[in-house]
Amino acid sequence: MEQTENRCLRSIEVCFSPKLFPEILTKDDFIVILVDILRATTSICAAFENGAKRILPVATLEEARILKGKGYLVASEQDGKKLDFADFGNSAFNFTRETIEGETLVYCTTNGTRALAFARDAQKIAMGAFINITALTQWLIRENRNVVILCSGWKNKFCIEDSLFAGALAEKLLSAQVFQTHCDSTAAAIDLWNVAKEDVLAYIEKAAHRHRLKRLGLDDVIPYSFTLDSTRVVPVYDGKEIIDAG
Amino acid sequence: MEQTENRCLRSIEVCFSPKLFPEILTKDDFIVILVDILRATTSICAAFENGAKRILPVATLEEARILKGKGYLVASEQDGKKLDFADFGNSAFNFTRETIEGETLVYCTTNGTRALAFARDAQKIAMGAFINITALTQWLIRENRNVVILCSGWKNKFCIEDSLFAGALAEKLLSAQVFQTHCDSTAAAIDLWNVAKEDVLAYIEKAAHRHRLKRLGLDDVIPYSFTLDSTRVVPVYDGKEIIDAG
Repeated sequence: MEQTENRCLRSIEVCFSPKLFPEILTKDDFIVILVDILRATTSICAAFENGAKRILPVATLEEARILKGKGYLVASEQDGKKLDFADFGNSAFNFTRETIEGETLVYCTTNGTRALAFARDAQKIAMGAFINITALTQWLIRENRNVVILCSGWKNKFCIEDSLFAGALAEKLLSAQVFQTHCDSTAAAIDLWNVAKEDVLAYIEKAAHRHRLKRLGLDDVIPYSFTLDSTRVVPVYDGKEIIDAG
Repeated sequence: MEQTENRCLRSIEVCFSPKLFPEILTKDDFIVILVDILRATTSICAAFENGAKRILPVATLEEARILKGKGYLVASEQDGKKLDFADFGNSAFNFTRETIEGETLVYCTTNGTRALAFARDAQKIAMGAFINITALTQWLIRENRNVVILCSGWKNKFCIEDSLFAGALAEKLLSAQVFQTHCDSTAAAIDLWNVAKEDVLAYIEKAAHRHRLKRLGLDDVIPYSFTLDSTRVVPVYDGKEIIDAG
């Protein structure tokens, strides 16, 4: 980690919870990378990989229900469970090519879309997941802006899986030598990733959310969620819709 | 880490920032351990080790100034710097036996006393530091309550030095086999501590606050702050004053 001041380098900061987002030091000209590994951001990448045209994130179930009435495909869950009126939950495995190709998807989740609302002041919000980490890294290098990696967490609490991704992405960005960090969260996330990366599926056994998914029978998606680079998509949110900028 | 449910075991949770304190899962019957390693909690332990009778934490400079006018000894700093009207800053080295023995100290700091205000709903608040970690662990085992380790952080941001202490304390408590954890923050803090513990002074070089102190010429206290068990004091706050319960 480079600790010397260098004005030419872009900064990296990690937020371990949406609640800490107002505390970030980088106050202008930054891109937010939203992270919700065991659900939203991995699923959104999967939907684009399978041909989704665009995704409309909505903050409330009421909005999702209204748009369902207007004929949209809707993905919606609460506390990990698919809601009755919805076409999909938010497992990445829901979004097959047969169901999603060429479609517009309305998306409402407990965690992921709430974090989007926090990040609305950012110029751009991109979705980060292990499955698109290299494409995302390359896109961020091209964009040449400061980066804030925003972990969705679980109900605003720190969560391991999102923090590991933050560390993995920060490490890749720093190795490109066009970024620097002075952020303790970033240093900690990188060290956690280095503890975990040799066998991330074993490491993630200690994550509380992994156990919640198991109880719900939704943990089949975990190996997929930790697979590196199965897609080149870079989902980007402009405040209205998410499209693939990859 | 024990992941199976066991009602007989007390829980451990770690909060990486006072801002995340409202999100804790343990809702009743818990003790808060306040942590501000590179200032308040190490300094408070040092003051009791050198014979302070009691400490009155105050939240505002105005209160500190009024109590100074009434003849109290006052420790007060803002952003790391001692304030003009105060007798002490908040370096542990200020509180020598000559100055503090038998005295009541009024204490007002940027970080530490703000975190106290967050934790006021707890039944008890104890001060944690590397210099009292074993005495604190033994006291917590005797108290037999759930434990929330509250890192003061830096202006509500995650900070490395407090998180390392949280990991060190959690590891000691778990090894006593009367505690369990289901908290991702606790697991992460323990792993960070295990990365750092072989050479914690080298590791802490990456902490942003360490560099702030260096710029202020206040980093002389760092080796002392990471020395294990130089005291047996356990400072406990009852909502009015801090006394030594060790």
